[in-house]
Amino acid sequence: MTRTEIDAVPDTTPEQVAELVAAAAAAATPWAATDLAVRADVLERIAARLDATDELIALAAAETRLPEPSLTRELTRTSFQLRLFAQVVTDGGFLDVRIDPADPQWPMGVPRPDLRRMNVPLGPVVNFAASNFPFAFSVAGGDTASALAAGCPVIVKANPGHPRLSRAVGRIVGEVIAECGAPAGTFGMVFGRDAGVGVLTHPSIAAAAFTGSTAGGRALFDLACRRPRPIPFYGELGSVNPVFVTADAARARADEIASGLLASVSFNAGQLCTKPNLVVVPEDSPLLAALAAAGPVPAGDLLNEAIERGFAESVARVRGHSEVAVLSGGPGQVSLLTTTARAVLADSAIVHEMFGPATLVVTYRDNGELLELAEALDGQLTVSIFGDAADDTAAALLTAATAAAGRVLWNSWPTGVSVTYAQQHGGPYPATTAPTTTSVGTAAISRFLRPVVYQSVPDALLPPPLRDENPLGIPRSVNGTRPQ
Amino acid sequence: MTRTEIDAVPDTTPEQVAELVAAAAAAATPWAATDLAVRADVLERIAARLDATDELIALAAAETRLPEPSLTRELTRTSFQLRLFAQVVTDGGFLDVRIDPADPQWPMGVPRPDLRRMNVPLGPVVNFAASNFPFAFSVAGGDTASALAAGCPVIVKANPGHPRLSRAVGRIVGEVIAECGAPAGTFGMVFGRDAGVGVLTHPSIAAAAFTGSTAGGRALFDLACRRPRPIPFYGELGSVNPVFVTADAARARADEIASGLLASVSFNAGQLCTKPNLVVVPEDSPLLAALAAAGPVPAGDLLNEAIERGFAESVARVRGHSEVAVLSGGPGQVSLLTTTARAVLADSAIVHEMFGPATLVVTYRDNGELLELAEALDGQLTVSIFGDAADDTAAALLTAATAAAGRVLWNSWPTGVSVTYAQQHGGPYPATTAPTTTSVGTAAISRFLRPVVYQSVPDALLPPPLRDENPLGIPRSVNGTRPQ
Repeated sequence: MTRTEIDAVPDTTPEQVAELVAAAAAAATPWAATDLAVRADVLERIAARLDATDELIALAAAETRLPEPSLTRELTRTSFQLRLFAQVVTDGGFLDVRIDPADPQWPMGVPRPDLRRMNVPLGPVVNFAASNFPFAFSVAGGDTASALAAGCPVIVKANPGHPRLSRAVGRIVGEVIAECGAPAGTFGMVFGRDAGVGVLTHPSIAAAAFTGSTAGGRALFDLACRRPRPIPFYGELGSVNPVFVTADAARARADEIASGLLASVSFNAGQLCTKPNLVVVPEDSPLLAALAAAGPVPAGDLLNEAIERGFAESVARVRGHSEVAVLSGGPGQVSLLTTTARAVLADSAIVHEMFGPATLVVTYRDNGELLELAEALDGQLTVSIFGDAADDTAAALLTAATAAAGRVLWNSWPTGVSVTYAQQHGGPYPATTAPTTTSVGTAAISRFLRPVVYQSVPDALLPPPLRDENPLGIPRSVNGTRPQ
Repeated sequence: MTRTEIDAVPDTTPEQVAELVAAAAAAATPWAATDLAVRADVLERIAARLDATDELIALAAAETRLPEPSLTRELTRTSFQLRLFAQVVTDGGFLDVRIDPADPQWPMGVPRPDLRRMNVPLGPVVNFAASNFPFAFSVAGGDTASALAAGCPVIVKANPGHPRLSRAVGRIVGEVIAECGAPAGTFGMVFGRDAGVGVLTHPSIAAAAFTGSTAGGRALFDLACRRPRPIPFYGELGSVNPVFVTADAARARADEIASGLLASVSFNAGQLCTKPNLVVVPEDSPLLAALAAAGPVPAGDLLNEAIERGFAESVARVRGHSEVAVLSGGPGQVSLLTTTARAVLADSAIVHEMFGPATLVVTYRDNGELLELAEALDGQLTVSIFGDAADDTAAALLTAATAAAGRVLWNSWPTGVSVTYAQQHGGPYPATTAPTTTSVGTAAISRFLRPVVYQSVPDALLPPPLRDENPLGIPRSVNGTRPQ
């Protein structure tokens, strides 16, 4: 990509930001009121157009240096995700309708009025797109899909790493919005850091989503909290995604675990938020020997020069610690650094996310050290355990992993996040700024909804999902029963 | 209450704060792992002990000046609320269990692993107790009940308005915790502003709940956000709870609405977060005449001198505006102030929460002004509409109310919040700092939970709610179906 091409997408001006936010604010009520069938249709059509637009993969490959097979899989995931949210919208369960009929005998001691509750959209959302998933966490990615599904207008702050792709995808989304008769302000996009901050701090914006670095995410979180009217900020920041290997597993499956680790660390050149940055293995084990003996593993290209620089700096920082040595690898290859559990327990700052093809192998002497490390973890997106169900440490490792992470894996690598009903992609800070939520899977829609209860409102004036006859056939909970 | 009695509950020292938080942190894992039946039993027993402890009402009456019938009703509500959360715990639906069996054909394009998700407790919670509900929003009130139900240890920051009652209730909770064999750190209490800040900013605290003033709540919210590890802060701050009366209703039901308003504004001396501070009525209407002609309505005692001072200042502030006049009432009585819709639209700062027996009656000339006011609202706990379903403005008023508030009422007064399955007590800022949540009703439990998903974990190592055989009979969603 030449400089001229980058300049082809100039930064959005403050005046344009003001216009885009005003359009999003004007779209909020009509988009919230749009029939669920139309909302689902918008998502389905965006998916179909993404699948049918051949040049997107080539654009993404040119701007991100990611391998085409990865990009093709990611595009499939992205359109699947849009279709899954279309299903969620059509189903209507996300409205979480609860009806408590009036009850003069309600045991609280005061008669219960008729109360009918449902979720409504929060309002216009800003979505800060990520660099490493130019489809799945970008312009038409998960945050956009879930916010549109919730009934919120979305303004995407495009990632500077793939501006032309962003523009191409943004054009598709805008065209579908127009085709379906939705208000034009339902979708917008801005380019440039200042424009992103301008949207985030605009009084009309009701929530923000972000996927990226800890430093960048924290700065935006702080801005969101310091607004005169603070707003929810759903930031997915940093995670070292620790992997713990028990002594039995390290002995019995040394080669399998070693090759699995190298594949997980090198996938997409290690540029995944779930890539293991910390692998805890027994000292003097066949696994450690297998890792030390691993031949050079090609690392793949990094997304762009800024990422290359950041990766080199983070590796240099970890490697520069007096207790850290190189286990294998070098420039252009997967780097395995190594240190001891004692060193990490003495100075937790050794552990640091390296966004690229590197990981830190930490050796432990005994199960006491293994568990001490597990119990000292910061918040994580994932914690993985390789072991046998009969291991003495298995239960304690799972308890520690549950306390730290949003996803706990057994004999599996954390890279590759399935988009499903049960998925949880989140975790305590610094993994995210909102530990009660997820940014992947169908539950992600709830981030952009808030409940409203109607007290003693006549049937004809209620929103259709709350009317006696339930004209839309929405699943509803009545007097505390399960939704039916 | 004499000064000596107040001094009988000294401020908690920093050393005591450190000990209490350490105990709460140590209790987090065992309390989270406590059988749901035991957790429910703790809540039931606290309820039974509250009901059976005769001196509590007298203590509350002495410290708060609230009338005994109100306190008795509030205590009934409080023990009911604890029992309702015991039911929620026993039911298990709050765990939101979702199971996605492995699926090699999952249309995302990559095989789906076995994923099993459930909610786990966030960790130790600090609960800042309110002044105006010495039972229902205090030591054993809604925030404590919902956090304990979720499996979180709780430290209450006692409200300075009722220290002896707080100590008596805290003793009951502590005794029940001990009787049931739960870890001692499951419940703790601190006194004094600095102690509250000390708990809130302690690294081991995972979430905070607050009910009180906008200024106080915002200051604590800012502290929670500025921590090195920010935590969720569930603050219920301020709301003017606007009431809109259509021209038809003001004509047809003038006396009924006037007496209902006076009852709502004077209940518990107007010291309710849902008390109307803004009543929008047609000019030259029988309703306005009825309000102007209302005889002196006794106002009742305010909670304490600090509240008296704050109330006097807020009334003086509103009354001091050049466009505001007195409609009726005076010292010791319910105060009705009045202004015009034009004045409010020109200067929204006229509208201000007056925590006590006063409200501002705003007169409008036509439906245009009525709707303009409704559409300019800040975030609210409640918006009430008095009208007829056939009114031209009804639908537009409901839309504006939905955009602003967590609860929308029709021909009903907002004071009195029923504790139910569908209840929503919350709303956009400044009503709360967490618009996607509620602090009243069974859904309040979800504030203190975060989801964790287990990937490919062997059945024997899974938490019981996720095992194939479902030994606890927890309702579960499988592959996106409704929970069963």
